[in-house]
Amino acid sequence: MDKQIGKKKFLDLFPELVDELVEVLKENGMPADAISWFKRNLDYNTPGGKLNRGLSVVDTYALLKNYKSYDDFSAVEYKKAAILGWCIELLQAYFLVADDMMDQSITRRGQPCWYKVDGVKEIAINDAFMLEGAIYILLKKYFRSDSYYVDLLDLFHEVTFQTEMGQLLDLITAPEDHVDLSKFTLEKHSFIVIYKTAFYSFYLPVALAMYMAGINDEKDLKQARDVLIPLGEYFQIQDDYLDCFGKPEDIGKIGTDIQDNKCSWVINTALKVCTPEQRALLDENYGRKDAEKEKTCKELFSELKIDSLYHEYEEGIAKKLEQQITEIDESRGFKGEVLTAFFKKIYKRSK
Amino acid sequence: MDKQIGKKKFLDLFPELVDELVEVLKENGMPADAISWFKRNLDYNTPGGKLNRGLSVVDTYALLKNYKSYDDFSAVEYKKAAILGWCIELLQAYFLVADDMMDQSITRRGQPCWYKVDGVKEIAINDAFMLEGAIYILLKKYFRSDSYYVDLLDLFHEVTFQTEMGQLLDLITAPEDHVDLSKFTLEKHSFIVIYKTAFYSFYLPVALAMYMAGINDEKDLKQARDVLIPLGEYFQIQDDYLDCFGKPEDIGKIGTDIQDNKCSWVINTALKVCTPEQRALLDENYGRKDAEKEKTCKELFSELKIDSLYHEYEEGIAKKLEQQITEIDESRGFKGEVLTAFFKKIYKRSK
Repeated sequence: MDKQIGKKKFLDLFPELVDELVEVLKENGMPADAISWFKRNLDYNTPGGKLNRGLSVVDTYALLKNYKSYDDFSAVEYKKAAILGWCIELLQAYFLVADDMMDQSITRRGQPCWYKVDGVKEIAINDAFMLEGAIYILLKKYFRSDSYYVDLLDLFHEVTFQTEMGQLLDLITAPEDHVDLSKFTLEKHSFIVIYKTAFYSFYLPVALAMYMAGINDEKDLKQARDVLIPLGEYFQIQDDYLDCFGKPEDIGKIGTDIQDNKCSWVINTALKVCTPEQRALLDENYGRKDAEKEKTCKELFSELKIDSLYHEYEEGIAKKLEQQITEIDESRGFKGEVLTAFFKKIYKRSK
Repeated sequence: MDKQIGKKKFLDLFPELVDELVEVLKENGMPADAISWFKRNLDYNTPGGKLNRGLSVVDTYALLKNYKSYDDFSAVEYKKAAILGWCIELLQAYFLVADDMMDQSITRRGQPCWYKVDGVKEIAINDAFMLEGAIYILLKKYFRSDSYYVDLLDLFHEVTFQTEMGQLLDLITAPEDHVDLSKFTLEKHSFIVIYKTAFYSFYLPVALAMYMAGINDEKDLKQARDVLIPLGEYFQIQDDYLDCFGKPEDIGKIGTDIQDNKCSWVINTALKVCTPEQRALLDENYGRKDAEKEKTCKELFSELKIDSLYHEYEEGIAKKLEQQITEIDESRGFKGEVLTAFFKKIYKRSK
């Protein structure tokens, strides 16, 4: 499976899906200005990311079916697997358009956030709704007659709600304009990252591929979940770590978690190991839009050796997950290899 | 079927549903502050309206089953019908929380809009998402094993998207801060009200009751739709008319459509019949936050006899709908009576 070909094939499908979605509005008699608005919403917000989530549906499906190249797929089969992938990208677009409004962010993926685009403003809320709606239009069109159609719907509903629960907890725990570190704990951090990120980014792509491949025994879904959820948590912890300790030239951005009062693994770990004096320092300096205060926090994190604590965590979780993967029961057709593929993309990444 | 008993029974179920929804968060291990936030979101935004949409699911179901009193329902049967009703109320809550943000409204149902409540602000976007999510939690819990479960999901998805299409067209046709009457036409008005209101308020309750009663032949759903959609359009035209010509003591509010630049039936009809000179007057005076300009518009509407044009429309549509209802084919169990019940609630209402 060639990575670049995979990404090209996947991206090439998108304009076709946009045409099909836009066609729904045409069939309903929507005026031209509304049709072009919806098209622009889809084009602006859906591609443009790394597409890891979407691509991994196709790759997981290929592994489950023992396909070695994209030529092993029938045309319909590839399109269906890729559509499930694009449905995750649409789900993500729905969340990101809304998150950017809630966080009052300015840019996303190197362009202005959608609500910041001229003339969009609050209409972005309805646009987010329509991105979500597009998922169910595609699922109905391509999967309505499959036995697992209802499972796909239930799965999307469940994962959407899990992500929203994570987002709610994040929003009320770490509002950008009010610092209260007593609300932060490593347990809350774990809940937030698992619900807000791991379910839709790690479990959802694999579960979708499993349904389509007909490997959907609850025992197998559980085997996948039991590795992918802690793996997704590890991924986010790594993200938090890199935001503070990564090199800007590696991660492609300058970390802002400290100034943004983020409920990150770094601050939660610091809060766990610090003395009352150090805690007072954090209370005064964390979550402020002030480069000096940010520097004070970073110095304290060095003192507290958050760096080593991270490497300890990383080695521990990596060992545990590798062990879990070796113990996967493949008797019903599920494959540990699917999980190994995810693990390898993440372990010791620096960007 | 006693109306007051009906409303009381329906309302009495709500706290039970809230407990069941909140339980989902508890089972997922959400911290207490997030649980009480979600509970408050449900309580603040879901009941408090007239509940016509929700109640009409139960009433329509009773008519289809020939039930004469609530005692004819089994306990489970009543609960399921009422849950479908509450799912429409949740859908409406989801739309209203978002609409209020998009319109920058101040109050709703005699209390501050949710996003205006202390400490809520943009979190209201995620809260709207969770109100929608609650629909699918309830449907799964109570209908997963019913043969029509997947039809309920498809129906909610379809109607949700229709409403969002209507909302999009409304938002780009009539932004509050930019008057451009050349964008208004009666055709656009018709599209907006049918998509934004008629599908979820008129067709959805009846279609849900039909699925639950097992009367769901596509021919019957179409018979219902063919009456309920124009009826819903009539209802909204009446609403537009009353906003301008109704007595505040009857409609319980002071109309603001003229000042708010609403794409209302009244302005669209005026634009259709006015002279170029009158049009210039409307261009200058419509959609401005100015009582004098509003008065100028109202005087022009009187001159143009919009009042009589409304009554002509009303008599025409009423006659047409009554005729259509007498022609309903009841051979598969559908009943014209269901449609008559809706018609009677609307015809010649003054509030």
